[in-house]
Amino acid sequence: MFYFDKRLQYPVKVENPDPIFARMLQQAIGGVEGEIRVCMQYFFQAWGARGPTTKYREMLLNTATEEMGHIEMLATAVALNLEKAPASLQEEGAADGIVGAVMGGENPRHTIEGMLHRHILSTGMAAFPANAEGVPFDMSHIYASGNLAADMYCNVAAESTGRVLAVRLYNAAHDAGMKDMLHFMIARDTMHQQQWLAVIEELGGHEGALPIPNSFPQSQEDQRHSYDFFATAADGSAPAAGRWTHGPSMDGKGEFTVFQNQPLGQEPVLGPARPDSGAQSEQIG
Amino acid sequence: MFYFDKRLQYPVKVENPDPIFARMLQQAIGGVEGEIRVCMQYFFQAWGARGPTTKYREMLLNTATEEMGHIEMLATAVALNLEKAPASLQEEGAADGIVGAVMGGENPRHTIEGMLHRHILSTGMAAFPANAEGVPFDMSHIYASGNLAADMYCNVAAESTGRVLAVRLYNAAHDAGMKDMLHFMIARDTMHQQQWLAVIEELGGHEGALPIPNSFPQSQEDQRHSYDFFATAADGSAPAAGRWTHGPSMDGKGEFTVFQNQPLGQEPVLGPARPDSGAQSEQIG
Amino acid sequence: MFYFDKRLQYPVKVENPDPIFARMLQQAIGGVEGEIRVCMQYFFQAWGARGPTTKYREMLLNTATEEMGHIEMLATAVALNLEKAPASLQEEGAADGIVGAVMGGENPRHTIEGMLHRHILSTGMAAFPANAEGVPFDMSHIYASGNLAADMYCNVAAESTGRVLAVRLYNAAHDAGMKDMLHFMIARDTMHQQQWLAVIEELGGHEGALPIPNSFPQSQEDQRHSYDFFATAADGSAPAAGRWTHGPSMDGKGEFTVFQNQPLGQEPVLGPARPDSGAQSEQIG
Amino acid sequence: MFYFDKRLQYPVKVENPDPIFARMLQQAIGGVEGEIRVCMQYFFQAWGARGPTTKYREMLLNTATEEMGHIEMLATAVALNLEKAPASLQEEGAADGIVGAVMGGENPRHTIEGMLHRHILSTGMAAFPANAEGVPFDMSHIYASGNLAADMYCNVAAESTGRVLAVRLYNAAHDAGMKDMLHFMIARDTMHQQQWLAVIEELGGHEGALPIPNSFPQSQEDQRHSYDFFATAADGSAPAAGRWTHGPSMDGKGEFTVFQNQPLGQEPVLGPARPDSGAQSEQIG
Amino acid sequence: MFYFDKRLQYPVKVENPDPIFARMLQQAIGGVEGEIRVCMQYFFQAWGARGPTTKYREMLLNTATEEMGHIEMLATAVALNLEKAPASLQEEGAADGIVGAVMGGENPRHTIEGMLHRHILSTGMAAFPANAEGVPFDMSHIYASGNLAADMYCNVAAESTGRVLAVRLYNAAHDAGMKDMLHFMIARDTMHQQQWLAVIEELGGHEGALPIPNSFPQSQEDQRHSYDFFATAADGSAPAAGRWTHGPSMDGKGEFTVFQNQPLGQEPVLGPARPDSGAQSEQIG
Amino acid sequence: MFYFDKRLQYPVKVENPDPIFARMLQQAIGGVEGEIRVCMQYFFQAWGARGPTTKYREMLLNTATEEMGHIEMLATAVALNLEKAPASLQEEGAADGIVGAVMGGENPRHTIEGMLHRHILSTGMAAFPANAEGVPFDMSHIYASGNLAADMYCNVAAESTGRVLAVRLYNAAHDAGMKDMLHFMIARDTMHQQQWLAVIEELGGHEGALPIPNSFPQSQEDQRHSYDFFATAADGSAPAAGRWTHGPSMDGKGEFTVFQNQPLGQEPVLGPARPDSGAQSEQIG
Repeated sequence: MFYFDKRLQYPVKVENPDPIFARMLQQAIGGVEGEIRVCMQYFFQAWGARGPTTKYREMLLNTATEEMGHIEMLATAVALNLEKAPASLQEEGAADGIVGAVMGGENPRHTIEGMLHRHILSTGMAAFPANAEGVPFDMSHIYASGNLAADMYCNVAAESTGRVLAVRLYNAAHDAGMKDMLHFMIARDTMHQQQWLAVIEELGGHEGALPIPNSFPQSQEDQRHSYDFFATAADGSAPAAGRWTHGPSMDGKGEFTVFQNQPLGQEPVLGPARPDSGAQSEQIG
Repeated sequence: MFYFDKRLQYPVKVENPDPIFARMLQQAIGGVEGEIRVCMQYFFQAWGARGPTTKYREMLLNTATEEMGHIEMLATAVALNLEKAPASLQEEGAADGIVGAVMGGENPRHTIEGMLHRHILSTGMAAFPANAEGVPFDMSHIYASGNLAADMYCNVAAESTGRVLAVRLYNAAHDAGMKDMLHFMIARDTMHQQQWLAVIEELGGHEGALPIPNSFPQSQEDQRHSYDFFATAADGSAPAAGRWTHGPSMDGKGEFTVFQNQPLGQEPVLGPARPDSGAQSEQIG
Repeated sequence: MFYFDKRLQYPVKVENPDPIFARMLQQAIGGVEGEIRVCMQYFFQAWGARGPTTKYREMLLNTATEEMGHIEMLATAVALNLEKAPASLQEEGAADGIVGAVMGGENPRHTIEGMLHRHILSTGMAAFPANAEGVPFDMSHIYASGNLAADMYCNVAAESTGRVLAVRLYNAAHDAGMKDMLHFMIARDTMHQQQWLAVIEELGGHEGALPIPNSFPQSQEDQRHSYDFFATAADGSAPAAGRWTHGPSMDGKGEFTVFQNQPLGQEPVLGPARPDSGAQSEQIG
Repeated sequence: MFYFDKRLQYPVKVENPDPIFARMLQQAIGGVEGEIRVCMQYFFQAWGARGPTTKYREMLLNTATEEMGHIEMLATAVALNLEKAPASLQEEGAADGIVGAVMGGENPRHTIEGMLHRHILSTGMAAFPANAEGVPFDMSHIYASGNLAADMYCNVAAESTGRVLAVRLYNAAHDAGMKDMLHFMIARDTMHQQQWLAVIEELGGHEGALPIPNSFPQSQEDQRHSYDFFATAADGSAPAAGRWTHGPSMDGKGEFTVFQNQPLGQEPVLGPARPDSGAQSEQIG
Repeated sequence: MFYFDKRLQYPVKVENPDPIFARMLQQAIGGVEGEIRVCMQYFFQAWGARGPTTKYREMLLNTATEEMGHIEMLATAVALNLEKAPASLQEEGAADGIVGAVMGGENPRHTIEGMLHRHILSTGMAAFPANAEGVPFDMSHIYASGNLAADMYCNVAAESTGRVLAVRLYNAAHDAGMKDMLHFMIARDTMHQQQWLAVIEELGGHEGALPIPNSFPQSQEDQRHSYDFFATAADGSAPAAGRWTHGPSMDGKGEFTVFQNQPLGQEPVLGPARPDSGAQSEQIG
Repeated sequence: MFYFDKRLQYPVKVENPDPIFARMLQQAIGGVEGEIRVCMQYFFQAWGARGPTTKYREMLLNTATEEMGHIEMLATAVALNLEKAPASLQEEGAADGIVGAVMGGENPRHTIEGMLHRHILSTGMAAFPANAEGVPFDMSHIYASGNLAADMYCNVAAESTGRVLAVRLYNAAHDAGMKDMLHFMIARDTMHQQQWLAVIEELGGHEGALPIPNSFPQSQEDQRHSYDFFATAADGSAPAAGRWTHGPSMDGKGEFTVFQNQPLGQEPVLGPARPDSGAQSEQIG
């Protein structure tokens, strides 16, 4: 179970509110690279963790709980960046504030209004769990497969795209407070990339953990093609050489080779449509 | 651009059609761990690949094109497993076939009908691009970040959950033809896990590629916390030791430490609601 | 604006409630082939109809309003088919009723419960706007393009898949009341297929209406390929002959020909990734 | 920010695992009436709370944090109910366990497998953030309007449908541990219904808070129709009398009356389609 | 069943078309606070209404039918506000009209084009069933629980967020015709808030209707916690006093108290992963 | 199975990159009128094609494979149009390039940034599988019904809305390279409209193929209403005459007539709510 502290994990300060930057921050809240995703992903992985020890459940709970605080920081940052956005055309002063602070005076407030409609119309100037384009976060992005190693790579993927996003936001930010908040979050993403890869290492690294799942005997897979790079160029030309076309495989269990792809199967023929199946008469055998 | 061969990449044969197994195979077509996802993900990564060489675009096109053939194999397998499923109660013979072959005789066909309604009602006994529960595949799962290393980890994640799924399907299959098809696909997943990790190695491995993106100077992140495991247990107890709590970090650039999480920020106070913002009067300052 | 009559358009009677058939009927309510779709599609086409006359707006309103009554009939049919479904294990009598009437006695009520969870848990035994698998209807399926002829073909498509679905439901039904209701709805789908094609004819038929939109001068399209069937077989073999490979085109404005597809363009080369774009260093020029 | 305790808020025990009940519990996790919804809704309301005091932010954080613990309890309950579900046909013993414990022996395990495919194929026997039919939770259901009173009614609605769901699950449960867990959750839903209504009372009750938003001067609305029940029966018959057809309005500011609906506007005529708009030529003026 | 009148319920006039306002109006059509939602919600509640009388079915049909006319008014308003929006760069005159009327001359038409792409590209300048950001309405927002009181609170919630939205649109409008249309719709929202609360009163008010569902004996819930406010602050501090922390509960059946939350359960331990479950070997017991 | 050529089907050149046009092109990639839709629709129709010949499977594979190349062309065009878009405020020169080329100097780059956030934040200046407003493509739009004639009309509908979209993009384009690419794609849409109608003709045209499905005996539908236009105007007025109100039906099997709609059914009365169903006590009989 859980507890809260009404203070934030790290200071969130905005000197010059920027409503367009507020929109961008939404990507880090409700985008597929964002914090709701990692928070919920780590929680569901924790709650379903099976194995001889509860150590991984606990580790995941530690980090999922940390991420909850990151959503809170970002939601606060969005609300602060919207402090002076225009709620309606009647609010001349507020709108002028925007124009002055953000737009350099040359852009009519109506355009800004158009870009902020969701914040104006649906939230009263607050964050919401959707991405920068208003697409609501959809929980199918919570990857929790029941395989610990697969989940760790899902987490590395999430923190890699997450740090890429945070860096892009940092580069787009022009407020010292926002840069400060983001430079903290970027550091945390650095750690989290490390952390999940450290679990893979603890699980045996490439040799011990791969191929995932390692509980399936490789003798049952089609070992003729386990380390083949399939080339599918129509002219049959050889692909450019890379680490993946020759040399030992990453798990040390095979040799990379190039295989020119070709049909090993036949043209499929399905049976005719069935009576009463609602097909056209011509399809019914 | 693209060409097709009307033959399949690998033989797809079904001796004893099993409509419930057809449903399960849908997960490998339209599930988030499935083949539409990897096919489209590799294509979009290829089409957006930037850098000094077109080598990665080409590599991605090779494998995306291969995956298109996997969707085709699975769609064919679904159709073949539905060959004798009951389209309506009128088709006594067909239904009996099902009962005989799959159910051992003791289950009324109506229950099966209930489980197959989508195949019966919407496709006329064919595959469709949705998962085993009928949830349509949603293209937000195509991860293509513009960062090559982040994309490679997204691909490792996809092939890890993909091979876990294929193994589960293999374990659930009882038809020799289906086991044969799956043992081929499992081998290909083995290779694809290797392949994306090989790109990471070519890009410098943990030391060269991490933290992702490696183009952001680490001096600009909050280096006090880049390699800290944040412990968030309410009682302040130390977390269990793991590869991630001490020792050198995976990228060789820091030391893992444990940091007991605590609020570094303050309680946030938002401004009052604005006039004309549609809040209650009590919220307006 | 609109009015209602509390009576139904056509009688809806269920002698032997069948909860699994209730599930199937959901496809005709909230499936992409269902009645919410056509109702809303015709309304939005009506409300956006532009042109020299309001005749098409009025025609669309007539039929959209009729379809609203079809949703009502189906929702009523779902509720009536659930009358005796088990709400909980405590209700022994009710459950037995199901087993007796529908299952022939050999199936435990728990399985049925599993198949009906949404009706039991979320609606209290009523219809809801989702398909037979519980996927909510999503309004992106409302096609209203602003081009009258394109919209008519969208409507023919909707009524074609709609009548296919209705026929499949008719074939799966075993209650006289349900068959009666469906034989009425199938007749209406017959008319609606005719109706939208009649508009195309009024707009000039194939010759006058095609290609859609007919307001774009064909001189501006690449007329070298306007009536070519592009063959994409990898071995360059000719496609089987069909009405579309030779002879006059449907609009009478060209001749069908076969063109062996080949790259007319070059390999694309994108610029390097930009500084501050969050790519890996290796991608930045 | 947040902390966790690795213990659960309330005991979760399962004596006789029931995989079909596990599926049902998913509705309370990822259904629109479920715990992810209330947890995230209260958090986003808290993070966007504006007004003269932080009291409501704090109240909302208290309850949102409690709800996070409820998701955890339910996820644990799902995993425990799946402990003995069959992962594959090879596991004869496990499958027999299911048949013995749940099905009374007469149902083949294959049907159960078909009903559990998502848990088997995607999670390895754990909970996931989707409803009982596998539809992923979609964050558009997080209602946080920026108006405190509107949000409170959204919360009453959520806890009302939530308690209805919890009661239905309680009635469907047959395990003492599950009934114990649910009887605790039902009590909490009771409190939460009370709590949000108590805020409305603190905000002035019906007279002070309504109409929401109370910051809009009612003099600017069309007061001819503010308390009219619009009757839309096609035959013009009077509606049945109710609390809403006569007598003082709930806010004490008007009298309920019946108004027979009729068109006050005219038939709309849109302009012709524009040149270059892609309409048919016939639509372009 | 249903009938239409080709006239509108209330006049819809636009003197100065404003394409950005057209976008905003979309929120009232296809947003979760919009008219499609209430219309369909009341219809599905009506069609599933169970109880000793058809009075509530009829009341719901009256209002659902009214709401259908509101969607029509808004769709008309969107089309009229787009009358002079630029369909392409070729239409200089039209574009200039926009710039003159709406933008004050200083904004290039290309930006506007970017904000209207959906209306230009997909609808030919008409409304569509999506919100102001183009996210299609998704029918999972139709709440119809089978419990009359729960449904009424869902309706109050819908009309509360609906009126907040209408007020925000009124405040953003600058066209007399639009203000007139909205001041009518705001009045109707006032009535509908009243109406659903009047049903609650008819059902016994707080004392008779709560806790919802009132058919579940409170003796079966965990009455130790039915009226406790759970405090979850990590430092154990007492929450600020409110109507919900002490005094009689709203239903008159208990006393509000504060309970300091703490784990009543234990750390959960799941069984090991199963053989053939696709987990890593280390997880399998 | 499939092969690729790394060259494009047709040249894609962009002289003056226009990031707003890049956004618009997204509609042709991931919109419901776009190329992912037709590509996947034709593939799934091919893979499920049943009937006495594999001719239709092969025809569909030819065109689906062609469409895959169209997605590639559009994705390339998006990336090229974003070549000089600003990735961050730091990149002064790049931003100036945009302002100079596209905006005529008067619009601050920040507004453009706001309109491109998804490309900047999530893709690093590349295409992604979503529409012009960032809504991800959802595979429920893949229509493959198992009825060949119904599928052909779905394809005509797709190519009709597709060509309308392509024409709108052509009209909005101002770059010679983009106009060249689009004039090729428009020609292909012309052919594809023809092609699917040619299949209908081969299947017997209106008389042979209608009503769809033609395998259902019309004697079983309610032939009293198969060719009736139902008029639903509340005042009972006759609808305007059209091809659909009188004269022979399109299939030559009936005569169009007008039928004034009226309730043929009765007011529905559902049974009371069931004990333990979670309804209010008042609803339980």
